[in-house]
Amino acid sequence: MTDTSGHRNSVTASPAFIDRLRERFGDDALNTGDAIRQQHGTSEAYFADALPDAVLFARSTGDVADLVKMCAAQGVPVVAFGAGTSIEGNALPVQGGVSVDLSQMDAILAVNADDFDCTVQAGVRREQLNEYLRDTGLFFPIDPGANATIGGMASTRASGTNAVRYGTMREAVLALTIVTADGKAITTARRARKSAAGYDLTRLFVGSEGTLGIITEVTLRLHPIPETISAAVCGFETLQGAVDTVVQSIQCGIPLARVEILDDRQMAAVNAWSKLDYPEVTTLFFEFHGSPGGVAEQVEIVRDLSNANGGGDFQWSNLPEERAKLWRARHEAYYAAVNVRPGAVGWATDVCVPISRLPECLVQTKADLEKSSIPATILGHVGDGNFHVVFSIDPNAPEEMAEVKAINERLVARALAMEGTCTGEHGIGLGKQDALIAELGEAVDVMRLLKRALDPQNIMNPGKIFALDMQ
Amino acid sequence: MTDTSGHRNSVTASPAFIDRLRERFGDDALNTGDAIRQQHGTSEAYFADALPDAVLFARSTGDVADLVKMCAAQGVPVVAFGAGTSIEGNALPVQGGVSVDLSQMDAILAVNADDFDCTVQAGVRREQLNEYLRDTGLFFPIDPGANATIGGMASTRASGTNAVRYGTMREAVLALTIVTADGKAITTARRARKSAAGYDLTRLFVGSEGTLGIITEVTLRLHPIPETISAAVCGFETLQGAVDTVVQSIQCGIPLARVEILDDRQMAAVNAWSKLDYPEVTTLFFEFHGSPGGVAEQVEIVRDLSNANGGGDFQWSNLPEERAKLWRARHEAYYAAVNVRPGAVGWATDVCVPISRLPECLVQTKADLEKSSIPATILGHVGDGNFHVVFSIDPNAPEEMAEVKAINERLVARALAMEGTCTGEHGIGLGKQDALIAELGEAVDVMRLLKRALDPQNIMNPGKIFALDMQ
Repeated sequence: MTDTSGHRNSVTASPAFIDRLRERFGDDALNTGDAIRQQHGTSEAYFADALPDAVLFARSTGDVADLVKMCAAQGVPVVAFGAGTSIEGNALPVQGGVSVDLSQMDAILAVNADDFDCTVQAGVRREQLNEYLRDTGLFFPIDPGANATIGGMASTRASGTNAVRYGTMREAVLALTIVTADGKAITTARRARKSAAGYDLTRLFVGSEGTLGIITEVTLRLHPIPETISAAVCGFETLQGAVDTVVQSIQCGIPLARVEILDDRQMAAVNAWSKLDYPEVTTLFFEFHGSPGGVAEQVEIVRDLSNANGGGDFQWSNLPEERAKLWRARHEAYYAAVNVRPGAVGWATDVCVPISRLPECLVQTKADLEKSSIPATILGHVGDGNFHVVFSIDPNAPEEMAEVKAINERLVARALAMEGTCTGEHGIGLGKQDALIAELGEAVDVMRLLKRALDPQNIMNPGKIFALDMQ
Repeated sequence: MTDTSGHRNSVTASPAFIDRLRERFGDDALNTGDAIRQQHGTSEAYFADALPDAVLFARSTGDVADLVKMCAAQGVPVVAFGAGTSIEGNALPVQGGVSVDLSQMDAILAVNADDFDCTVQAGVRREQLNEYLRDTGLFFPIDPGANATIGGMASTRASGTNAVRYGTMREAVLALTIVTADGKAITTARRARKSAAGYDLTRLFVGSEGTLGIITEVTLRLHPIPETISAAVCGFETLQGAVDTVVQSIQCGIPLARVEILDDRQMAAVNAWSKLDYPEVTTLFFEFHGSPGGVAEQVEIVRDLSNANGGGDFQWSNLPEERAKLWRARHEAYYAAVNVRPGAVGWATDVCVPISRLPECLVQTKADLEKSSIPATILGHVGDGNFHVVFSIDPNAPEEMAEVKAINERLVARALAMEGTCTGEHGIGLGKQDALIAELGEAVDVMRLLKRALDPQNIMNPGKIFALDMQ
């Protein structure tokens, strides 16, 4: 774990300061209770708890702006919190200060169905949005598994199962309302589908993990619900055969909507956790979107490729409730994998490589895992070249943590050697700071210059992504 | 026109400095001849000439880095130059200094056909790249009309005719090599299809018009050449009918590859310039990509919509050479429009609005143009909500320039009132600086902070996008 304490330059919120916050925001919104602080100081992953001094439940962009102004005047850190589902410690207030919880900012402000876009407050969750949109014939495709907030997904540049066809939050966000480190609210772009108007502030803030400003509203691209949606599950004799099927499908230009790999151990965990009875072999979960004719064309080609690579029969799920069951199992895969041991904590890795290197990256990783006694599964968004290893770690066995750290370092080094990235979608947070430097070298200094320019006091989610000292 | 002289804080290259450049780069590469300086100090649009003190024909990233280091030591401006086809004065060295011409850096460094990507030097032109790629079955879709350099296209966030299906340079660029203002070379990302590794430097430099650093290499996403490509031209009784057809096609989710509008005057200009005999009515140019079945499905729906909106017969161009002729006519449309008067200069506007607002925006703009006596045509990438008015201006009639300026200001105000942008694809350069502030307000101050952080001496293409003083 990266030590961030050496870069602490912010101050803890004093009791007098918290009193002033309480005066401005009221007892309902400003909370210093132990349980609430604990909830905002714990992550879903293996990081040590780090509690905020107070939690503000913001109700408006104005609340966030006022909070940031007050914190800026004192040098107190501000850390945005959405659903708390990130897994690199991205929202942990490691230098104390105020957690600003955006979950009550959950209004859907506008749906422009004719333009395939909508504007929502940052605390709207993706499932809530899709439920709201259902009658419009549109949907929001980005699906990281967890029922995250849209603001959190933008902050970590999330993607997930649909990204192979519909892109990531990088492509999905049209515009943002941001509270900057001096407490001003800006809007980064208009609602036009494309623009060449100055620097791309939207993309700068997407993925900046709250370190440059706080996202309070998001304008999103939407997509028409396809006329035909077909989902299928297919087991393979070998990991190599499954991943070769994916790579060849992509190289044929098949517009797969989703293609997920789950290895034999992950399938066993899914069966146990979700009470299913899939064969416990490496399996692909597919989803095809399009016109009836278009889907039929896609399926025919992919089935031929699958047969040639040792795939079994396709088990189809064409009814909405069957598909929902299938994808629920996929979405619970992380919890299924962590909970193969009671009381375990999870560590999810997250590399992404060029698709041509994916088979060797996966096969080498699987071989490395087989040398370890720690339960570990492979699952991933293989159409993008992105996959995760999920470890189930005994929190009372420090040697397990050390072993996983070493396996993860080998995995990141393997991905970087293949021109890949240390994180496809989880972000850097606390856990990948050394890997970021290994990946991008002096470019990280350019990031530092940007951070210093936009947050000169280092109050916005301090201690994340990189240490501030130049290389 | 925005006055940038008040923000000049850079120094002209002294004769002694130019001697040192000549010593380092040699007479072949470092040129101070009048003709070459003139070529690098003229734009395709209505801006006054602004000549560099010298032109360096760079041969490598190392050349660019050394030049920037030498210029930084003296505070001399550095302005990147590709093919010189930008039309907002983006590459004019308005504060003098050195133009660095990247056109000789035209090597295609790698094509990774299995990963649908390639890496090229910044001076490679898009037609050269597509010719090179032909045997791989892949193509680079971004097509702004002009045979621009890839570096220039990245710098202005170019898009063009294929963007409705394939996106803009924002989506097409996977990674950049940048020479920063201190003369270091950095690479912004790896070759993975997606990444959440820190700030999105790639998207920050795409569209920054050389004001934050100089792009010397570009890694691009490629796409498979579709199995079936069909192009068609269709004339309409009314402008409204043509644009309604486009909007309804997009709203039906038809994955149009290209859909271009040319109004009656533009068609007359095209006929005269390209020696064609299309009916001189508002016309849509379509291109459909997909499998044979997929294209047939698309065509059927679009033809029905077109018939319902007063469209005539589709004239098909399915053979490659017929398609090339059709799109050549479209690409020459700017020159055709400017040259309806001999000796005229061009002024191309460039707004983009949400697609639902496009019909009223186009109809109101057409009505405004009809009140003017200055020749003007409408053409645009209407699938994105983006269109241009091209004026043909007598350079010796200052009242014409003033009238066009007023029409353009009304057009920008109309687009902004419809939640659109003042530039879909041409960038800000010199011509849209006031419009940028009208569009984004205080967000421009955030851009200024970024510029000051990455280019503290203001030597990288100074005077472009915005004045440096905070609002």
